[in-house]
Amino acid sequence: MTKDLHTLYQHGTLGLLVPGLFEGTQTVGELLQHGDTGIGTATGLDGEMVIVDGQPYLVRSDGSVNLLTHDVKVPFATVHFNDDQAESFMVENLTMEALGQKILAEHAYENVFFAVKVKGQFAQMHTRAVEGQKRPYPTLVEVAEKQALFDAENSRGTVVGYFAPEMFAGMAAPGYHLHYLDDTRQMGGHILDFKIAQAQVSLQVFENVIQHFPVNNQEFMNHKADVGGVNDQIQKAEK
Amino acid sequence: MTKDLHTLYQHGTLGLLVPGLFEGTQTVGELLQHGDTGIGTATGLDGEMVIVDGQPYLVRSDGSVNLLTHDVKVPFATVHFNDDQAESFMVENLTMEALGQKILAEHAYENVFFAVKVKGQFAQMHTRAVEGQKRPYPTLVEVAEKQALFDAENSRGTVVGYFAPEMFAGMAAPGYHLHYLDDTRQMGGHILDFKIAQAQVSLQVFENVIQHFPVNNQEFMNHKADVGGVNDQIQKAEK
Repeated sequence: MTKDLHTLYQHGTLGLLVPGLFEGTQTVGELLQHGDTGIGTATGLDGEMVIVDGQPYLVRSDGSVNLLTHDVKVPFATVHFNDDQAESFMVENLTMEALGQKILAEHAYENVFFAVKVKGQFAQMHTRAVEGQKRPYPTLVEVAEKQALFDAENSRGTVVGYFAPEMFAGMAAPGYHLHYLDDTRQMGGHILDFKIAQAQVSLQVFENVIQHFPVNNQEFMNHKADVGGVNDQIQKAEK
Repeated sequence: MTKDLHTLYQHGTLGLLVPGLFEGTQTVGELLQHGDTGIGTATGLDGEMVIVDGQPYLVRSDGSVNLLTHDVKVPFATVHFNDDQAESFMVENLTMEALGQKILAEHAYENVFFAVKVKGQFAQMHTRAVEGQKRPYPTLVEVAEKQALFDAENSRGTVVGYFAPEMFAGMAAPGYHLHYLDDTRQMGGHILDFKIAQAQVSLQVFENVIQHFPVNNQEFMNHKADVGGVNDQIQKAEK
């Protein structure tokens, strides 16, 4: 298999998690055919997935971090093949917000999707993991209100995630959407904030974005979308 | 080359035509590697493109209909490989609006992209073609105000186009976006309305949508998007 370094692959949409479509519709094994790096969630929103070096980890709300087997299904995930030659630079003593601004100030990337990888030492890392839900599924905002919070200091690890242009809000979270996994594989999750002590930042711009739909899932196909409300709720749930 | 019948390919976004990014950024030849059927526009918004059976036609505002050469560049186009085995049904005496409603009433396709092909006899066909622009380019709404209108009665031909879910507004026109080419290759354009006398309707649902970005075009990369205003203007320009 040729690894396409210029293509981002997404299964499902963030917008359809909002009303509670949390059933897994693609196996992790299928997902890994499209990338060795990425982020996502699990059936029932049972944690935060982060894929590093082809290894799919799930950070759950009880704080556990486990490798996922390839038969597990996910409702939403975004992956790509990491380019070892991607442009990179070193940063020190930088907050998440300052890093996000620095990237867009120094690169004309606002209209494209790109991957962000930050590898190094974090003075502070603040993450969350949503709690697994049973049917009938609540909305994403209701789940986010019950999230578990995790904090680490002087943590070595890897931030993996994406920037999506505002025009694609709904399909993805507009702006940055980042997950974390520490080097000991004991702490991670959906990032709320961090402060870098010293790290290498890599940026990988995508020429193509493949959006894959769960067309064989009847719940997805039959869902009546309320798109107007979705983007407001993405803002609430992802912050 | 294997023809992937489950994938829609789009170059550029409708949202970036809105502020006037009308420069062609992909050749028709490259585009045809991703589909034999589709719609689009030309550099400077110089007409309405419709691709039928692998033949790319351009309907211009002077009423001319010409085959495009493969070296011509387009700023925005959507294509797919037509599936001869796609689900189809016959209809008689049906307006465009009634056809659109019938499709969504009978199929749970509201959350996916699908192609619509209507081949047969049209009692009425009402189209438009935008007028080619020179730099400095105006906005899409300004161009749409100066469009040429065309009418035909008892026209035999083919409607080609797509339905896009509301969640993807900006990337594409939400709802239906249809172009027309008559069998004599003398009349066509962006469809404003039609009435079917008798025709075969084919629907082709896509599991994947590939969004291709003109990442080597500096004007696109440097553009400061005003996404809030874009969707309102798409509504104005595409109706």
